[in-house]
Amino acid sequence: MFRFRIIKRDAKSLARFGLLITPRGAVETPVFMPVGTQGTVKAMLPEMVSGLGYKIILGNTYHLLLRPGPEIIEKAGGLHAFMNWRGLILTDSGGFQVYSLAKLRKILEDGILFQSHIDGNQYLLTPELSLEVQLRLCSDILMVLDTCIPYPSDREEVKALTQLTHRWAERSLEFWQCQKTEGRAIFGIIQGGMWEDLRGESAKSIGSLPFDGVAIGGLSVGEPCEIRNRMVEISVSHLPEEKPRYLMGIGTPLDIVDAVMRGVDLFDCVLPTRNARRGTIFTSQGLLSIKQAALKEDFSPLDPYCSCYTCRNYTRAYLRHLFMSKELLVYTLLTLHNLSYYGKIIKTIRNSLTKGTLQELRDHLATLYSKYNQEEEDGSE
Amino acid sequence: MFRFRIIKRDAKSLARFGLLITPRGAVETPVFMPVGTQGTVKAMLPEMVSGLGYKIILGNTYHLLLRPGPEIIEKAGGLHAFMNWRGLILTDSGGFQVYSLAKLRKILEDGILFQSHIDGNQYLLTPELSLEVQLRLCSDILMVLDTCIPYPSDREEVKALTQLTHRWAERSLEFWQCQKTEGRAIFGIIQGGMWEDLRGESAKSIGSLPFDGVAIGGLSVGEPCEIRNRMVEISVSHLPEEKPRYLMGIGTPLDIVDAVMRGVDLFDCVLPTRNARRGTIFTSQGLLSIKQAALKEDFSPLDPYCSCYTCRNYTRAYLRHLFMSKELLVYTLLTLHNLSYYGKIIKTIRNSLTKGTLQELRDHLATLYSKYNQEEEDGSE
Repeated sequence: MFRFRIIKRDAKSLARFGLLITPRGAVETPVFMPVGTQGTVKAMLPEMVSGLGYKIILGNTYHLLLRPGPEIIEKAGGLHAFMNWRGLILTDSGGFQVYSLAKLRKILEDGILFQSHIDGNQYLLTPELSLEVQLRLCSDILMVLDTCIPYPSDREEVKALTQLTHRWAERSLEFWQCQKTEGRAIFGIIQGGMWEDLRGESAKSIGSLPFDGVAIGGLSVGEPCEIRNRMVEISVSHLPEEKPRYLMGIGTPLDIVDAVMRGVDLFDCVLPTRNARRGTIFTSQGLLSIKQAALKEDFSPLDPYCSCYTCRNYTRAYLRHLFMSKELLVYTLLTLHNLSYYGKIIKTIRNSLTKGTLQELRDHLATLYSKYNQEEEDGSE
Repeated sequence: MFRFRIIKRDAKSLARFGLLITPRGAVETPVFMPVGTQGTVKAMLPEMVSGLGYKIILGNTYHLLLRPGPEIIEKAGGLHAFMNWRGLILTDSGGFQVYSLAKLRKILEDGILFQSHIDGNQYLLTPELSLEVQLRLCSDILMVLDTCIPYPSDREEVKALTQLTHRWAERSLEFWQCQKTEGRAIFGIIQGGMWEDLRGESAKSIGSLPFDGVAIGGLSVGEPCEIRNRMVEISVSHLPEEKPRYLMGIGTPLDIVDAVMRGVDLFDCVLPTRNARRGTIFTSQGLLSIKQAALKEDFSPLDPYCSCYTCRNYTRAYLRHLFMSKELLVYTLLTLHNLSYYGKIIKTIRNSLTKGTLQELRDHLATLYSKYNQEEEDGSE
């Protein structure tokens, strides 16, 4: 059985410390999920990811549907066995990647018609097909298909697409109830664009359906973070207390603590992994570019306050050398460090929550990241 | 002190089982050295390399001279500290890479004038500079600068370049005797092209100088393997028994056993690592291409007789998926497997040598690799 239990509430904010309990193990929340788009957290052995304390990762249905295809992963015994991952897997519905990556996309009442960005093959992704694929992947937490709404969009378009998302949510639940789903969870997704009333209605509508959890979708599409925070507040205000809340695709450490204080429990984001591959490092002093010439003879670790494998064994000078030489090892070493940083941040958030010091942590993270905006998500990891 | 001790000789061939004894540890020979061109064995954590039983790797002086530069590695405490490698390091002289990679190369009496393939900067690599760089890298086994000779070349050219190599060898020893070199070893290099008499003279000449070991250079430049084997035989026949012999840049498992039976002790080659990155896998049944469609639903390991980390945890179908998706993790997993294979081959060679069954092993490897020729070396790893 899948359950969510709230262990402790913050007295000064809406933050909650909770437990996701599943047949595959329990996960403390707030939790951050590294992104494993194509059946791998890029450049990481699965043991490295679990060794950093991560117990749940995200897989992308769109990518795995196109390659290698759900039938192969099903035959392999599911995505966990296929990729040698012993923790939990949450899969998205594919809707966001169809929106951001696919060619010739067309939204129909029945689903989304699109062409693969890999081979041009045509697919019709329906709410039912998305769940069927996720079930074949053996996902632990499945997301329903939603429609992605560009920002800015006019009110009528947002309204129509949000209502379509609601109809798909109901179809998804009908389909779900006829499947073997024991031990798995299904999450609905709120849309509503950046219109406060439409967001509120969407949250009310999705929150009232018998989903195991609710995701806040359609954010991190280029909106200012004040608007995003407001949309999170409105969404959460209409959601039932007892269900886990997942803010999709977000964000910087500051974004995450801001959302935790507004009542969000689950997060995923490509930032730690993608930034690592681009040479941007998270440190206790803020961001560091590994490319800068100043590091050429810097024999200190990436972060003097970090004890990850990379910081224990390698210098900035060496990592810069590998990066400038495009040596494969550097992507592993930098990703490991950035994921270690995110793992510590989310743990610190949980600790601060139980100690009642979230605001102090938030103020500290604001000094490091208030000027750093996550780029618009493009779903590509 | 650096020493080489021969423990056992094969009764049926010239093969020897020996020990390289250095202040940084002892290494059994015949030994295979993975190539770590730019201060990293590509896509491998150093612990993965040592975990496979490797105790010595090769570093490329040409690459490290150009980037990051010997002064940085020296300040880092040497190449071992820089790259977090606790074993031994043999460095080449840079001559071969200048020959194969640099632009506008000109061989002068004093050394080789060339332009960096990275930034076009001009360098004059002399025998003295090569050793100075290798000493600053803190190499355990240093190679003298030699001249590389294209194949085929006319006799006069081969003769002139071989004689220049000999003059450089003598200059190298003069320079060496004025340096702090305790615990380090210096190897001379035989040239002579594919001319039996010139090879023999070169071996006699280099073999008579007070080097700690002797390398057989100028092979794997496009010659048929019968000629190569003959050149190895001639070289070895003129070398002192008590010094270790190193066949540079070679080769397939069959090439290695052939050279072991002709009296060679040390080997390095990019084949296991480069092939891995290109999707060509060494298995107990011969070569396997990871790209082939037949592996799409093949849930067996790369090699059913292999117990490496990759074979214990991943299927051909998964590795093919990662390879087709250009996922970084695959280069690590395939390199680990291929290096595991080479590690087992060289161990089997040592075991067969002590049991007197080298010929049987050679016959077996011939069934797997007699049609597989290593591509011409290009020094790029």
